[in-house]
Amino acid sequence: MYRTHTCGELRKENIGQKTTLCGWVQLKRDKGGMIWIDLRDRYGITQLAAEEVKTDKKIIEIIDKIGREHVIQVTGEVIERYSKNDKIPTGDIEIKIEDIKILSESETPPFTIIDNTDGGDELRMKYRYLDIRRNPVKNALMLRHRVAQEVRKYLDAQNFVEVETPVLIKSTPEGARDFVVPSRMNPGEFYALPQSPQTFKQLLMIAGMDRYFQIVKCFRDEDLRADRQPEFTQIDCEMSFVEQNDILATFEGMTKFLFKTVKGLDINYDFPHMPYSEAMEKYGNDKPDIRFGMTITDITENVQGKDFVVFDSADYIGGICLENGSEYSRKQIDELTEFVKIPQIGAKGLVYCKYNVDGSFKSSVDKFYNESDWAIIAEKMNAQKGDLILILAGEKERTLHGLSELRLKLGNELGLRPKDTFAPLWVVEFPLLEFDSESGRYHAKHHPFTAPFDEDIHLFETDPSKIRAKAYDLVINGVEIGGGSIRIFDKDLQALMFKNLGFSKEEAEAQFGFLMNAFKFGAPPHGGIALGFDRLVSLFGGSDSIRDYIAFPKNNAGRDVMIESPSQISQAQLDELGLIVKEVE
Amino acid sequence: MYRTHTCGELRKENIGQKTTLCGWVQLKRDKGGMIWIDLRDRYGITQLAAEEVKTDKKIIEIIDKIGREHVIQVTGEVIERYSKNDKIPTGDIEIKIEDIKILSESETPPFTIIDNTDGGDELRMKYRYLDIRRNPVKNALMLRHRVAQEVRKYLDAQNFVEVETPVLIKSTPEGARDFVVPSRMNPGEFYALPQSPQTFKQLLMIAGMDRYFQIVKCFRDEDLRADRQPEFTQIDCEMSFVEQNDILATFEGMTKFLFKTVKGLDINYDFPHMPYSEAMEKYGNDKPDIRFGMTITDITENVQGKDFVVFDSADYIGGICLENGSEYSRKQIDELTEFVKIPQIGAKGLVYCKYNVDGSFKSSVDKFYNESDWAIIAEKMNAQKGDLILILAGEKERTLHGLSELRLKLGNELGLRPKDTFAPLWVVEFPLLEFDSESGRYHAKHHPFTAPFDEDIHLFETDPSKIRAKAYDLVINGVEIGGGSIRIFDKDLQALMFKNLGFSKEEAEAQFGFLMNAFKFGAPPHGGIALGFDRLVSLFGGSDSIRDYIAFPKNNAGRDVMIESPSQISQAQLDELGLIVKEVE
Repeated sequence: MYRTHTCGELRKENIGQKTTLCGWVQLKRDKGGMIWIDLRDRYGITQLAAEEVKTDKKIIEIIDKIGREHVIQVTGEVIERYSKNDKIPTGDIEIKIEDIKILSESETPPFTIIDNTDGGDELRMKYRYLDIRRNPVKNALMLRHRVAQEVRKYLDAQNFVEVETPVLIKSTPEGARDFVVPSRMNPGEFYALPQSPQTFKQLLMIAGMDRYFQIVKCFRDEDLRADRQPEFTQIDCEMSFVEQNDILATFEGMTKFLFKTVKGLDINYDFPHMPYSEAMEKYGNDKPDIRFGMTITDITENVQGKDFVVFDSADYIGGICLENGSEYSRKQIDELTEFVKIPQIGAKGLVYCKYNVDGSFKSSVDKFYNESDWAIIAEKMNAQKGDLILILAGEKERTLHGLSELRLKLGNELGLRPKDTFAPLWVVEFPLLEFDSESGRYHAKHHPFTAPFDEDIHLFETDPSKIRAKAYDLVINGVEIGGGSIRIFDKDLQALMFKNLGFSKEEAEAQFGFLMNAFKFGAPPHGGIALGFDRLVSLFGGSDSIRDYIAFPKNNAGRDVMIESPSQISQAQLDELGLIVKEVE
Repeated sequence: MYRTHTCGELRKENIGQKTTLCGWVQLKRDKGGMIWIDLRDRYGITQLAAEEVKTDKKIIEIIDKIGREHVIQVTGEVIERYSKNDKIPTGDIEIKIEDIKILSESETPPFTIIDNTDGGDELRMKYRYLDIRRNPVKNALMLRHRVAQEVRKYLDAQNFVEVETPVLIKSTPEGARDFVVPSRMNPGEFYALPQSPQTFKQLLMIAGMDRYFQIVKCFRDEDLRADRQPEFTQIDCEMSFVEQNDILATFEGMTKFLFKTVKGLDINYDFPHMPYSEAMEKYGNDKPDIRFGMTITDITENVQGKDFVVFDSADYIGGICLENGSEYSRKQIDELTEFVKIPQIGAKGLVYCKYNVDGSFKSSVDKFYNESDWAIIAEKMNAQKGDLILILAGEKERTLHGLSELRLKLGNELGLRPKDTFAPLWVVEFPLLEFDSESGRYHAKHHPFTAPFDEDIHLFETDPSKIRAKAYDLVINGVEIGGGSIRIFDKDLQALMFKNLGFSKEEAEAQFGFLMNAFKFGAPPHGGIALGFDRLVSLFGGSDSIRDYIAFPKNNAGRDVMIESPSQISQAQLDELGLIVKEVE
């Protein structure tokens, strides 16, 4: 062993001990005869000290050569510090350097290894191995580790069995976003990388495994947004002989366990269950942040028929009420108006009404609405004196989206979304089917194996869009952490589902025949859930970006700029695979 | 919840309780007015009972329809069994059927779901989801789960951090056996799947993570032997600021912890350390099974010069001594002779000498060797009266291999290799380099970053083949469970290594430049190990085949016969990837 202690563990109690430490040089200071070095490893920082006149000349010579990020080994006595540092746990002591050795030199790193570094994103990614030396990144990876261990501890105790499903699977006709892998041993044929282990986890239930889990890499070859990665990690689970509430109870339990063990937080209430329709009506969003109110009120019937053409011609008019906002300045309101006009929201304008402290109303549409009109609207919206009412109008779905975005923006600005407060809930009763006007047919909102509510099955005949699914999402702080469903395990119901999705028997057979075949041999009732592990960890870490919580992430173009991948491969490799790369025109 | 209990938990203490169980019908017996059903789930089997005359007719009608592997739900009272079954934990009780429901029917499965099934290998793989219902396979997967949890528990407690390294990495010029993945977003470019996370774990050490582990899928596109899979799982670890003995101690600790927690076995001795040269000389094998003796003795100098041309012309002559084997029949010895002549061994013949109980010797080469010759040989081999001496001669390496195979065969036949006895050891002091006569140059035996023994570095100048590496293998019962090395972290030593491997500076830069670059920024001394997880679990399970311990394995052609993968993909997919599949001539 190169060391007796780490750089994070020496305390007052160790004073007088002889110790050997290893680590990276964070900082060297030379101050009138005294030299101090901050030595860093994963566990912390310990100060080393040498008094120039009293220290062996050879040691001073070595110290002179030492620069930032050199790896050194130091032996010396633990002594009490003259001026203590109460910001670090080792701040009471320092090591009197008695021997020192440079284990590895370092060139000047391309950015400084400090919490607030001067390195830009691209540079940090290119030198990710240096970036990870920084506390924020190191701590993110340590947090990820902790969450993974606690997830497994909980699920193991709940009789879940971790089963590794294959990574080299089969591409499906609908797998347009599959990554494929040519097989050398089977020329012209390809494996696919899984977008999720969905088929396999259902097979494991048919196989009688009863409770399955896996923390597993999944893959999707799609254009990447800031918070997407071509490879991502899921906590994937499935249970047999359960109904929806059993699954919710199990994973609510896991979530609480994680908050307790990882964050030290007790959540001693049941997570609210909110129907999808309520989430949409009140939050304009199927993943509502319920840490704050400012919910949406439908005021369509209260504002129409007053000759205001914008409202009269609108499909839907809704408003949110900003507490104590009546003093907002013209400039502030203009800024909000500009915000709702950005293309991603696309509103034509923003109507406001100040409910003044004196009880009077002042709106941007005073021409059409008088004080008593506003009094009715204010009452419906539960607005109080001193509030600001903000109103959008237009096509319903779009308008709700706009109100949701406006609400979240205001929530952020007003500090209503603190990173250390967590408000989990279950969004339930999702629609089973979504009508796609382009193709003129229904699509499964979750996936084609999701079970409908028993009491809604009759609606297949009359109004399929009203059928509720046994599907659920776990939402925390406006982030969809995961989702799942109870699966159909009845052949006839599955056939009815396929019919409504517009599959012929042959098409259903071609796409799903393999799993259907397995269902012939005794499928138990089952259901499951998949949680986005990257997202869960970043939520715990208080970040919006999953990239910070992935050791070696890829950029928006799907590139790993550190190893420079993807890259061209040799002609010999292509030949062996029987592949020709088309020339780009 | 569909059930109140599992099929494995009801006992005498539950008698009188009302219970609801779910599971698969293992067996239905109808015996003069009484019907019994064995109901199975992952947790066990519980007997259900109905007395025909006393049971509701509707229930009897449902029972009549029930066949093997139907999924049913049963409610009834726990009653004491008339004739108990002490072979199963639930054997004291049965359930008096009061209500029964068929949840899912089953067609007759293609093979019977019993421990010793009638299903052949290919059929079992095609219907793997039914195969997993069988106890041996289910238990193998449960064991795998258990080992995985305990591995993480140990490493977490030892301050290892689990870090997920990327699956989509970069193909290297020497990565002939890489699986590649075409990138849709970067046409003409490919990712590669990792054969191991070697580069990344070394980068994590440079990144200061100090102790890393991962239970991780790795990939190799090569012709498969019976015990190889294109995707396999490793316990991958790396540590900083350590020397070889620190790593051995850590993973010896882990191995003991696993034996204790998984198998209930105490291994309260230090694992022996055996130099590679000793393993080769005494066992003819770098992964010796030391559960039994019968070690090899070099008798070259004792048998040459006696005019026996076969021995006189041989590079090496070695023997093993079979305890109490002097009574072996002609037929038995002929069989051994045939064995050493198979192409995989390729010996020309087998010389034997019986050391009879009366002290006389009888050999197959009595023409050349007299009693006193044999007395000397017997003494050197430590043979006793009643033993059988077996001798092979030829080129040294090949002959040692033959003796090793013969030794293992005899060990198997004589029951010297019991599945429930474990003899772990470390094989150490591997040669750093291997001379390849074909290419006329040295290859790294482990990999080019493996550090040489400090005291052997001078041999680079004189006899590189004699340089010992800081490399080590964990071997248990003749199986290589894992291996690793201390890495070079000194630039100059690395350059020397590359030079000896015949790399020009440019070649070294092209192949390893990326990692070399990272080494410029302060690399700590580090080393690691990778254990074959599939193999470790199968060892614990007492099987020679890793396939039994993988949920969804592939066959020798790399095919998953269940999902029929790999397979052709659509022209649209190929077009999007910019690939053309060559016609097979």
